[in-house]
Amino acid sequence: MIPRLDDEFYMQLAIQLAERVVGQTSINPPVGCVIVREGRVVGMGSHLMRGKGHAEVHALQMAGEDARDATAYVTLEPCSHYGHTSPCCSRLIEAGIKRVVVACADPNPLVAGRGLQALREHDIEVVVGVMQREAASLITMFSKFMLTKLPYVTMKTAATLDGKIATHTGHSQWITNEDVRERVHALRHRHQAIMVGIETVLQDNPLLTTRLSVPALNPIRIIVDSKLRLPLEARLVEDDTAPTWVLTTTQANEHAARELEERGVRIIRVNDGPLVDLSLAMKLCAEEEIGSILLEGGGTLNGSMLKAGLIDRILLMLAPKIVGHREAPSVFTFEGAESMGDALRLEHLQVEMVGDNIIIGGSPLNRKLRKLCDSQEVDTACSLV
Amino acid sequence: MIPRLDDEFYMQLAIQLAERVVGQTSINPPVGCVIVREGRVVGMGSHLMRGKGHAEVHALQMAGEDARDATAYVTLEPCSHYGHTSPCCSRLIEAGIKRVVVACADPNPLVAGRGLQALREHDIEVVVGVMQREAASLITMFSKFMLTKLPYVTMKTAATLDGKIATHTGHSQWITNEDVRERVHALRHRHQAIMVGIETVLQDNPLLTTRLSVPALNPIRIIVDSKLRLPLEARLVEDDTAPTWVLTTTQANEHAARELEERGVRIIRVNDGPLVDLSLAMKLCAEEEIGSILLEGGGTLNGSMLKAGLIDRILLMLAPKIVGHREAPSVFTFEGAESMGDALRLEHLQVEMVGDNIIIGGSPLNRKLRKLCDSQEVDTACSLV
Repeated sequence: MIPRLDDEFYMQLAIQLAERVVGQTSINPPVGCVIVREGRVVGMGSHLMRGKGHAEVHALQMAGEDARDATAYVTLEPCSHYGHTSPCCSRLIEAGIKRVVVACADPNPLVAGRGLQALREHDIEVVVGVMQREAASLITMFSKFMLTKLPYVTMKTAATLDGKIATHTGHSQWITNEDVRERVHALRHRHQAIMVGIETVLQDNPLLTTRLSVPALNPIRIIVDSKLRLPLEARLVEDDTAPTWVLTTTQANEHAARELEERGVRIIRVNDGPLVDLSLAMKLCAEEEIGSILLEGGGTLNGSMLKAGLIDRILLMLAPKIVGHREAPSVFTFEGAESMGDALRLEHLQVEMVGDNIIIGGSPLNRKLRKLCDSQEVDTACSLV
Repeated sequence: MIPRLDDEFYMQLAIQLAERVVGQTSINPPVGCVIVREGRVVGMGSHLMRGKGHAEVHALQMAGEDARDATAYVTLEPCSHYGHTSPCCSRLIEAGIKRVVVACADPNPLVAGRGLQALREHDIEVVVGVMQREAASLITMFSKFMLTKLPYVTMKTAATLDGKIATHTGHSQWITNEDVRERVHALRHRHQAIMVGIETVLQDNPLLTTRLSVPALNPIRIIVDSKLRLPLEARLVEDDTAPTWVLTTTQANEHAARELEERGVRIIRVNDGPLVDLSLAMKLCAEEEIGSILLEGGGTLNGSMLKAGLIDRILLMLAPKIVGHREAPSVFTFEGAESMGDALRLEHLQVEMVGDNIIIGGSPLNRKLRKLCDSQEVDTACSLV
């Protein structure tokens, strides 16, 4: 009823500022900043676009002279290195900020703590860890990318209560309700790329764009297509709302590749074949500065990605329907576990009802990532969306 | 788990921007603005201080050229009149905004709808009512002030479970727990003035400043003191953290008045006396541009203000204590109701536990204000804090 007025009060706003720009900062993390002087908010800002001003820059600009002797609340440790812009630490120091409250340190082991150090050296009081968990969870994708040089992959899949993604006749539109389908579009906005297998393209001829009541960002469309069967007349070849990339092998037909390239499709030959090496593919995507992928594959691609340990978060949209028939395709198709103890386990579980549908979120246990997080003292909340 | 991406998504941020500046805009309403272009937040801002830029101005400044063809989300109808700054409507039009989403119309009957009209005349698509309730509730104080030319008065009082504000010996420090007391300080930050009776000053010698873990705003201190008994050595005379005003009568001793004035205290002779006419006093405060008052009086002042129908919101902090004794002072002291049906009733009830204390919020039924709200089509949420 009456909010407490303290560091958290202002950090909450900084976190909201960061949260609302998720999806628009490419591989950069979403960051928010609020500047407060003598009980008065004088500046606020978010990082709005990669290559443009960081959150601190916008907030300092709004604050102007009022930044002197003020406190800056930042969701992420201010940068101390020269990137696309001059370091935020220098800007905070020059503006005369006297206190900096940071939610979480930089997950990049090469720079973590340096920003804080630089500020302290200029007699700025630095407080770290206010709303650390919430802030760390906002930059999950960035942290994973930084620590592993692999994109953060969210697998979204819809299924009936009996784990089917279509009836035995192959009919699948629609499993979930409209509200859930709209949220999937919001998910697309929040990822840099969307990935499906060629089977999905051949079967559904999807557009894979973000269609909502308001304009939204369209992620790069990535098709896993080992034999380069993508037809020239596929909607995502003809439509140029977003780039289309094809992950294939060196065995891909040269002529087909050229024809697709002429239509603006980017062909990436991941390995020799016969099948695309998904781990290598993810590494290549990361090199191309893809930090987050929404996987909307069918059972086969989903199963392969899972088996390869490339999935960070699963969002399972369950509809209260039962379709039966053993030939109806299952939500995950892969060589299964022998014993229940060997089952793939999800952690960091979340559940939410959306109308009569149920969304279940969970992260496959990733020992390697967790170890990295621990060694860098990155909160393990980094495995949460 | 997955937020919907729609007009509400962005209006939520605009509302947060407004919410975090409550208290710092004097009689102006807190307002937030977010500018979004092609699925990307490009600008954000709040009204930070009376006489300085409105929310739209800050947001447009951050957006720069990106405001062209963008959508502006504003918590309150953009102004169309020349005040301290040029009208926001003109600025939105000049910046090339093509769509404006407004949470609630201006509660000022003289200008309501004009801003929207001006925008529509320039072929800007205007949507009104997105998160209307939340936005209206943010400007409750402003709406009351606009509609009645009286300040919005929040009465805060602490009591034991048996409705006592002290033991029968007069001992009262402290009734509530530390967290609740800290929230009361946050309440001070959110009001333009704080008001007590002279009895409270003589008894407790309070400072009436805002003391928190972070710097906060100090409201004007108003003392109701019909006979001008305020001692020169009172802490709130000696301390100049915030202005001190005394509401008294023409019967006040001239010499005492001059001595207080020499120490910077402002003396306002409300009426002839013998007692301060509280209704007139509130009217005078409004004329002095006090739009909100936190009343922290004792039982007598609280009772008189209640009886005069000058209270908009009661916040009763209940401690799980029972002190007994019929001489122990009660939380409200006024000529009571004859029958239970005549009791003063509170509506818009809220309740919250803070540690082992309970905060109860409620608004005395104000038929006149409600009628005004209805006639101006202002949501009755305007009687909610």
